[in-house]
Amino acid sequence: MNELSRVAENLTPLEQERFADQTTPLIRDCWYVAGFSDEISREIISRRLLGIDIAMYRTVSGEPVAVRNRCPHRSFPLAKGRLDGDTLICGYHGMQFDPSGRCVTMPSMPIVPSNANVLAFPMAERGPIVWIWMGDADHADEDLIPDTSWLADAGWKSVRGQFRIKTDYVSMHENLLDQTHFPFLHPGTVGTPEYARSKLDVRRVGDVVIIDRALRDAAPPGIYGVPMQLMDRKVDRFSEARFASPAIHTAFASVVDRTGAEGPETYRFNITHLITPETNESIHYWWFNSRDRRLDDPTADEFLLVASEQAYLEDVEALEWILEAVTTDVEPQFDLNFAPDKPGLLMRRILFEAAGAAKKA
Amino acid sequence: MNELSRVAENLTPLEQERFADQTTPLIRDCWYVAGFSDEISREIISRRLLGIDIAMYRTVSGEPVAVRNRCPHRSFPLAKGRLDGDTLICGYHGMQFDPSGRCVTMPSMPIVPSNANVLAFPMAERGPIVWIWMGDADHADEDLIPDTSWLADAGWKSVRGQFRIKTDYVSMHENLLDQTHFPFLHPGTVGTPEYARSKLDVRRVGDVVIIDRALRDAAPPGIYGVPMQLMDRKVDRFSEARFASPAIHTAFASVVDRTGAEGPETYRFNITHLITPETNESIHYWWFNSRDRRLDDPTADEFLLVASEQAYLEDVEALEWILEAVTTDVEPQFDLNFAPDKPGLLMRRILFEAAGAAKKA
Amino acid sequence: MNELSRVAENLTPLEQERFADQTTPLIRDCWYVAGFSDEISREIISRRLLGIDIAMYRTVSGEPVAVRNRCPHRSFPLAKGRLDGDTLICGYHGMQFDPSGRCVTMPSMPIVPSNANVLAFPMAERGPIVWIWMGDADHADEDLIPDTSWLADAGWKSVRGQFRIKTDYVSMHENLLDQTHFPFLHPGTVGTPEYARSKLDVRRVGDVVIIDRALRDAAPPGIYGVPMQLMDRKVDRFSEARFASPAIHTAFASVVDRTGAEGPETYRFNITHLITPETNESIHYWWFNSRDRRLDDPTADEFLLVASEQAYLEDVEALEWILEAVTTDVEPQFDLNFAPDKPGLLMRRILFEAAGAAKKA
Repeated sequence: MNELSRVAENLTPLEQERFADQTTPLIRDCWYVAGFSDEISREIISRRLLGIDIAMYRTVSGEPVAVRNRCPHRSFPLAKGRLDGDTLICGYHGMQFDPSGRCVTMPSMPIVPSNANVLAFPMAERGPIVWIWMGDADHADEDLIPDTSWLADAGWKSVRGQFRIKTDYVSMHENLLDQTHFPFLHPGTVGTPEYARSKLDVRRVGDVVIIDRALRDAAPPGIYGVPMQLMDRKVDRFSEARFASPAIHTAFASVVDRTGAEGPETYRFNITHLITPETNESIHYWWFNSRDRRLDDPTADEFLLVASEQAYLEDVEALEWILEAVTTDVEPQFDLNFAPDKPGLLMRRILFEAAGAAKKA
Repeated sequence: MNELSRVAENLTPLEQERFADQTTPLIRDCWYVAGFSDEISREIISRRLLGIDIAMYRTVSGEPVAVRNRCPHRSFPLAKGRLDGDTLICGYHGMQFDPSGRCVTMPSMPIVPSNANVLAFPMAERGPIVWIWMGDADHADEDLIPDTSWLADAGWKSVRGQFRIKTDYVSMHENLLDQTHFPFLHPGTVGTPEYARSKLDVRRVGDVVIIDRALRDAAPPGIYGVPMQLMDRKVDRFSEARFASPAIHTAFASVVDRTGAEGPETYRFNITHLITPETNESIHYWWFNSRDRRLDDPTADEFLLVASEQAYLEDVEALEWILEAVTTDVEPQFDLNFAPDKPGLLMRRILFEAAGAAKKA
Repeated sequence: MNELSRVAENLTPLEQERFADQTTPLIRDCWYVAGFSDEISREIISRRLLGIDIAMYRTVSGEPVAVRNRCPHRSFPLAKGRLDGDTLICGYHGMQFDPSGRCVTMPSMPIVPSNANVLAFPMAERGPIVWIWMGDADHADEDLIPDTSWLADAGWKSVRGQFRIKTDYVSMHENLLDQTHFPFLHPGTVGTPEYARSKLDVRRVGDVVIIDRALRDAAPPGIYGVPMQLMDRKVDRFSEARFASPAIHTAFASVVDRTGAEGPETYRFNITHLITPETNESIHYWWFNSRDRRLDDPTADEFLLVASEQAYLEDVEALEWILEAVTTDVEPQFDLNFAPDKPGLLMRRILFEAAGAAKKA
């Protein structure tokens, strides 16, 4: 029995073909992030999401609105038009659309055309995030919006950032589920050697993939130990990484300090990774690093912001190099899979099944 | 009966497929503008016209010459060579071509090869414009060159400009035939609200589309009223917009001032729009704004130049946004057609028929 | 009998189709130059050769190593990793590869996977050049490495340079075998008129094409006459241009001065042109200009360096213009062939046969 038999689920070659990659069709029936709440305002912006160019703005009362960024008449980009109250006015012939996308005025016509509508997309705001549903609007159930309640909870404090990355969202999720790269790609921040060797517990629960880890009586990683002022002691560390949907990966970490006289102190960190494919080969990415201790400490804010940015930049660089290698090479994506790849492969199988489509030849 | 029945000619869905757009093959048997006369000189220039790279120069006696910008021997661009009298000499192996494209010397061969010719294109100069015939040379009848006689008439004065635009020539012609966008895209110049609502008379005469408009006892538009010093009175306004060929749109406007003691005074403006496809998705564009009054007034020159440039830049920006939307979107061109689109649709049917080809699938 | 009957080998139209051009598949079973020796060091570099991205470095003992620049696990570019002794360590998950490409350590696995290898390419160093074999490694016979012994011979002195050129290697070789372009493209350096008219002797010997020329009692060309201080006298000139393989063209020139009192003096110049396709439409190019006289004369070095650079830049510019003309034009490559094109056509037939494949339609 050789080491390949250790590959996740002992896949046969045929089964190995059934993982999503950058060629797999995107999954439309899903809530994705359209932007930070403060990116969407009374100034119309455009953004490509799942290959579709979208115009976004807020109504006078503050509701976020998203419509296709293309007038049905002559394809003028609606984001180049202007708002009059809640009405979006095309900059070419003055067609007016209400927030549902219905044409309410066509200046050069005495009667408003009944078929001159633009597709609108359901949106929902949750704390600092606006979500969008790009699939069948009949399926846009707000109960399906992933939990990010800590981002709007007064007991938590967050730092945040965003990137546009020339990678595919599958590789991004695989990177987030893969903790064996920490010591090599992130030696300065999250990659402590002990942690790399700690045992993983990997589970698939429905379409969610969960990785649990625990490491007792060890040095804290710098990214948490420094801002929480714990670098001088040993702690217990716990983490749960969770592929929760094509749009979000959450990591729940906690550090327990048992050295205090008044009993154990727990420090919790929730990392929220929000991923929306721009195209099959590029993504929008927003992140939050949230904590439940030392909320009013600006040096902790600064440290967590800088350390997070650095680690994510290392990932961005690596993922862009990889997609460039794969797309410019004579050979397409190839995978050589090992046991530690199991969580990523579970995720890629979920995406493959959800895409409901065979890979391109 | 709903408003869609008002669409030009009550087209059936099948008929609606029969309009040219940016995917329609270009029409070669037509006189197009190759450049302003003063662009073509004893210095060889190259320019892509209808997808073909052309080298252009003048003979010693001043005749404009156009040949393919590619030596028949090893494809060296001939515009990188040099002139010796009327002879164009290739910069790679010294092959010499006369203005008809015939090879007259091949330095490395004792006898001039009889088949070593480069394709030459008929040219004709008319006032400040040089025309070129890119189709079958046997059809290059100079009687087919569109009338622009006012550009060389001492009773007229012109200002002019040029652009290279990343749009298709079909959309450019549609924009020129479409006057309902004036108040929205050009609110500062040509877009007076009354005019937008004046009645159109649209005719197809052979392969020409003509739009006539008249508006009596109204404020003049700033672009004519200011330089002619008529902004303090009401005038009668008349215009004829004319799609005359794939290469040219002309607009003949006149403003009649009936307030003078000595009877009505007529101010005429001819706008000449010259369009040559560079490729299916880009055009060369030259324009003239000509008037028959206040010929020696430099402030009128300046005003007409600046106001025209501004209006055309607004069109350029809009047309480039639209082509980008259409070509980067997952869905191709779609048209939702209304009654005011009739002149553009007539033009697009003429182009479609002239292209003599079904649209790409 | 017209001049076309003088075309090389009186080719029928069908036979004329059988020459390599920029669409012909590249020839893999051949030694190509990977770089100057001093380009390959303990710092890993990447370079695309024959369409394949390669990572290159030297072992501790100085042996050059080339492997595919793509980890078999998740396609991370190996040149972005680091060296530990002779071992190349991937920057993503720390996989370690020995110089043969065999995986020797996979940090996240207890056993080294037996199938986790990266393709390594045979290399061989000859003087200032490192050669690489990109084809079937079983055929990588070092006896096939072309002779460039003068580059490492103490009796010779060389100046050198390199370019990356947006041309195809077929056109580059054709340019090197074509001496009729000298007076037109290089009038200032190698293009003396007498030489352009000297008789060629063209031979094909196996897969080698040889052109011999002799010109007696003529002015020396400036590129040799100036640095050797021979411009004041008549000399005999001899040259052999040799297409030796897809990777190399060598030119052996000699100038004999018979004016001296002590008998004839011979000055020899070997020009080494080293060509490796980067892709079908771009090449790496290294050149050496070597001489056997005035070895310690720095003004000769400087003159030969500057004059060579200038002549090669003229070729680079011409070849890039031509490939751009061919690839952006509506018509593909066309050839009009004349008698002086014979050596290039022989070479292109050799490449066509070696590619062993029909041209793309």
